[in-house]
Amino acid sequence: MAGLDAHAPPLAGVFAAVLTPLTAERAVDHRTLAAHCRWLLANGCDGLSVLGTTGEANSFSVEERTDLLDRLIDSGIPADRLLPGTGCCAVPDTVALTRHAVARGVAGVLMLPPFYYKSVSDDGLFAAYADVIEGVGDARLRIALYHFPQMSAVPLGAALIERLLARYPGTVVGIKDSSGDLAHMTRTTHAFPDLAVFSGSDTEFLPLLREGGAGCITAVCNVGCHLAAEVYAHWRTGRAENANERLANLREAVATYPLTAALKAILARHTGHAGWRFIRPPLMPLDDAQATELFALLDAAGFAPPPP
Amino acid sequence: MAGLDAHAPPLAGVFAAVLTPLTAERAVDHRTLAAHCRWLLANGCDGLSVLGTTGEANSFSVEERTDLLDRLIDSGIPADRLLPGTGCCAVPDTVALTRHAVARGVAGVLMLPPFYYKSVSDDGLFAAYADVIEGVGDARLRIALYHFPQMSAVPLGAALIERLLARYPGTVVGIKDSSGDLAHMTRTTHAFPDLAVFSGSDTEFLPLLREGGAGCITAVCNVGCHLAAEVYAHWRTGRAENANERLANLREAVATYPLTAALKAILARHTGHAGWRFIRPPLMPLDDAQATELFALLDAAGFAPPPP
Repeated sequence: MAGLDAHAPPLAGVFAAVLTPLTAERAVDHRTLAAHCRWLLANGCDGLSVLGTTGEANSFSVEERTDLLDRLIDSGIPADRLLPGTGCCAVPDTVALTRHAVARGVAGVLMLPPFYYKSVSDDGLFAAYADVIEGVGDARLRIALYHFPQMSAVPLGAALIERLLARYPGTVVGIKDSSGDLAHMTRTTHAFPDLAVFSGSDTEFLPLLREGGAGCITAVCNVGCHLAAEVYAHWRTGRAENANERLANLREAVATYPLTAALKAILARHTGHAGWRFIRPPLMPLDDAQATELFALLDAAGFAPPPP
Repeated sequence: MAGLDAHAPPLAGVFAAVLTPLTAERAVDHRTLAAHCRWLLANGCDGLSVLGTTGEANSFSVEERTDLLDRLIDSGIPADRLLPGTGCCAVPDTVALTRHAVARGVAGVLMLPPFYYKSVSDDGLFAAYADVIEGVGDARLRIALYHFPQMSAVPLGAALIERLLARYPGTVVGIKDSSGDLAHMTRTTHAFPDLAVFSGSDTEFLPLLREGGAGCITAVCNVGCHLAAEVYAHWRTGRAENANERLANLREAVATYPLTAALKAILARHTGHAGWRFIRPPLMPLDDAQATELFALLDAAGFAPPPP
C-alpha cells in the first residue's frame, strides 16, 4: 500500500469491491471467497472492500456478515487490508457490524447511511452517524462514508460531510463516491483535503487521482485489479494511459450487464468453478446468451484476468 | 371487521400503519405501544399494521422487531388483528420475521420487496418472494405485498403480481398500494379480483372502495381512525362524504410535515405523554415551531382525536 505506515495504514490505493461467492444453496462459500481475496491481494489490490454493494451485503443477515468477516480473517487474510461495508437501515445493526469489524482489526469500514427513508434531513443523517460512532465507542474506528445516490437514494452532501469531519476528525477519514460524477468527486476532494476520496467506478479513477483523490473501490477490480494497480503505480508519470484505457474498455464491456452477475460470470469462466455464478435474489445470474455475448466482448478486447 | 369469519378473517377494512413509541433512549416503549393499539382498536381500526414505514420498522433490528411483536401480543392485543411488516433487504431476515409472526398467529404480514438493489428484474423479485414463502413453509402464511415506489424505489408491477398469484394462491392475498396513484390502484383492483387492495393513503380510500378495494392501511389512522371507520361503515350509502372530507383535511394538514414525526407530535399533545415525540434517526422530531404550526392547522380544522 503506497505510503504504508505499519501502525495506521492510510486508506489509499486500489480496493476491490469484493464479490461474495455462494454455494448452490446460496450460502456464503467461505473457501472460494478466501481464495479470491488472496488472488486479489496478489494481483494488485491494496485493500479489499468486502460486503459492499457488489458483495451483495444487503442480501445477508447481520449474523451472516459477521461470520463472513470472521472466517475470512481466520483464513489468513490480513484484517488491516479489509474495509468491510457495515451500513444498514437500522442503527443497531450498523453498530453491531461495525463494532465487530473494529474488534477484528480492520483498516476501516465503508458505511452507507440508513437508506430506507428518503428525503431525510442532514440533521437526521448526522444523528444516525453520530449514534453509530458513539454506539461503537472505539478510538480505532475509521469510517469511509458511502455516497451512492443511484442505489441508496440517500445522497451525502457537502454540508453533512463538513459537520461529520468537524465533530469526528480522525474517525470519519474517507468517502467512496459511486455517483459516477467526476465533478462532484473533485469538489469533495478539494473541499476536504483530509478526506480520502475514492472513486466508486474505474472511469473516474485516474482523473480523480490527478485531482488529489485517494484511490478507487470498484466492482471491476474483481477481475481487473492488475490494470487498476498499473494505473495507480504510474499515474504521476504519464505511463498510466495504456492500462487506463484497457481498464475503461473492460468497465464498458462489463457494465453493459448487471455488474455483480457479469463479474461472477467472468470468474466462473476464468476459474472453471461454475458455482461462481450463484447469486442471491433479487439479483439474478446472467443467462447463457448474455454470458456468451459478454465473453465475446472481452475476447474481442483481448482481456483476460491474471492466472488463477 | 366487516365480513369477519371466525376462522380466517379476510383482510379488509381500516388498518392503522401503527407508530412505534420510543423511550428517551429510543428503545421501543412497549407499554405505550400496547395502550395505543388498544385505543386504535376501540376507535375504529379493524386491524393494526405494526412495523411498517410509519412504524419505523427499518430502523429496528430483527431482534427488536420480534420482541416488539411478542410483547404486543403478550399484552393482550389479538394476534389476528395484526398485519406486521416483515420485508427486509435480506431474505433470511424476512424469513425469520415472517416465520415468527406466522407462529404467533397474525392475520397476515405486509411484505416489502428487498429494497437495496434498484432496477432489479421481475425474475429476481419473484425469486426473492418465492424464497421467503418457501423458507417460511407454513400454510397459514398470508402476505399483503407492499408497493411503495417513492420510498422503496422498487415498484411491484402487474406482471409480477400475476406470477405470484398464479404460483402462490391463498398465500399472496393482498397488496398495500402507497403510490398515491388512484388509477394504478384501480387497475390492480380490477385486474386481480381475488387480491385485497389497500390504499396506503387516506385520500384514495373512499374512491378505491367504490372500485372494489378492500380498505386502507394508513399513517393518518393513528389519529384519525374514527373518521376512516365512518367512511368504511357508510361508503355504500353516500353518507360517507362528511367523514371523508374531514379525513382528507386531516391528511392534508399532517402531510405538510414528515408524516411519522407529525403524527408523533399530535399524539404527544393528545395524550400528554411528551415521550411520544422520540423518533429514531434518520427521522427527526418536529421542532417546536413546526409543532405549533401543525397544531394551529388542526385546531382551525376543528380536528381532535377521540379521547385517550
